[in-house]
Amino acid sequence: MKIGIIGSGNVGGALGTGWSRAGHEVIFSSRNPQSKEMKELVAKAGPRATAAATADAARAADVVLLATPWGAAEQAVRSAGDLKGKVLIDAVNPLLPDLSGLTLGTTTSAGEQVAQWAPGAKVVKAFNTVGANIMADSRFANGRVVLFYCGDDADAKKTVHQLVADLGFEAIDAGPLKQARLLEPFALLWISLAFQGGFGREIGFEFLRR
Amino acid sequence: MKIGIIGSGNVGGALGTGWSRAGHEVIFSSRNPQSKEMKELVAKAGPRATAAATADAARAADVVLLATPWGAAEQAVRSAGDLKGKVLIDAVNPLLPDLSGLTLGTTTSAGEQVAQWAPGAKVVKAFNTVGANIMADSRFANGRVVLFYCGDDADAKKTVHQLVADLGFEAIDAGPLKQARLLEPFALLWISLAFQGGFGREIGFEFLRR
Repeated sequence: MKIGIIGSGNVGGALGTGWSRAGHEVIFSSRNPQSKEMKELVAKAGPRATAAATADAARAADVVLLATPWGAAEQAVRSAGDLKGKVLIDAVNPLLPDLSGLTLGTTTSAGEQVAQWAPGAKVVKAFNTVGANIMADSRFANGRVVLFYCGDDADAKKTVHQLVADLGFEAIDAGPLKQARLLEPFALLWISLAFQGGFGREIGFEFLRR
Repeated sequence: MKIGIIGSGNVGGALGTGWSRAGHEVIFSSRNPQSKEMKELVAKAGPRATAAATADAARAADVVLLATPWGAAEQAVRSAGDLKGKVLIDAVNPLLPDLSGLTLGTTTSAGEQVAQWAPGAKVVKAFNTVGANIMADSRFANGRVVLFYCGDDADAKKTVHQLVADLGFEAIDAGPLKQARLLEPFALLWISLAFQGGFGREIGFEFLRR
């Protein structure tokens, strides 16, 4: 699969590197694709990874990951050009700068907002509920980390399901896109435990059944 | 400890029964404390359980659990009388009748609203993130279910921590009361997985660390 990464920071970098190592073709992008950081990221991600301008990465890709800061997300989506028919994975959380809350309430979600900015795109909310360190390495000795996704397009969700599983998570379909109203607060719970709660970032949730 | 249960349905019944069996004195209440259902509940909960009118249960208790439907919660709190200085555990989720969403967004929470209705009470949000069946029996063969709580009063939280642990959960402090804005959507995630997601109610989350 050919994956365009819009926003190649901690999250985009970790996901892109993992997908590259799993056999996918990855195109990282940012506002400065020629930067030293981007070159280092591409080198680390291996021979299937390249870097490009945002519009080029999006045009060439089957799947586009949005992983910018929330404040940059609208502009990044517009910079990507026409995304109609593409799988657009929204990994963005609309966090306040101090991580104390969300700039959008549960009356809507970033996932739904992104869908409005990208008419025709098959938006799937995913990869927003754990930190980049867990995305980079999902292994825990005592259990398997669950990663939820949600969206309105069944085929797009099958694709994302596989991409989640590729990184070693248990992939769970959380329902339609409006469930982002639940997954975004879930992300803030992780953040608050990690940073304000004193648990640190090496934490996750396992989905238990009996 | 002497615990008053306001709202003795599935949640209040399960918690009260568990606490009773763990050695606490439990006073169940509802709008009809003489009902057949209440008598059966009291019998099931064992010799440390009784039933009373709401105001009487609250007056006699050190700790009050609020576990009514959301639509009945305001009236139930007012019926309880003066709760100043008491530990008031809010286990209520402000759910729409069809469980499709919350009647309050993340701009506030049921926990905070309850605190406004009960001036001076030490409100702790807890026991709202799993179903009554898990509260009744928290054991999973392959892991330990986490149960979060949050509130603004440190001593009240210590008390609730112990009450959570009494039922076999891993008790985790999720921070100040405004974190109910995260724990309430977390509850709806559980609900949606159980009912719309097809997983059924025998599910939970384990908190993993490495």
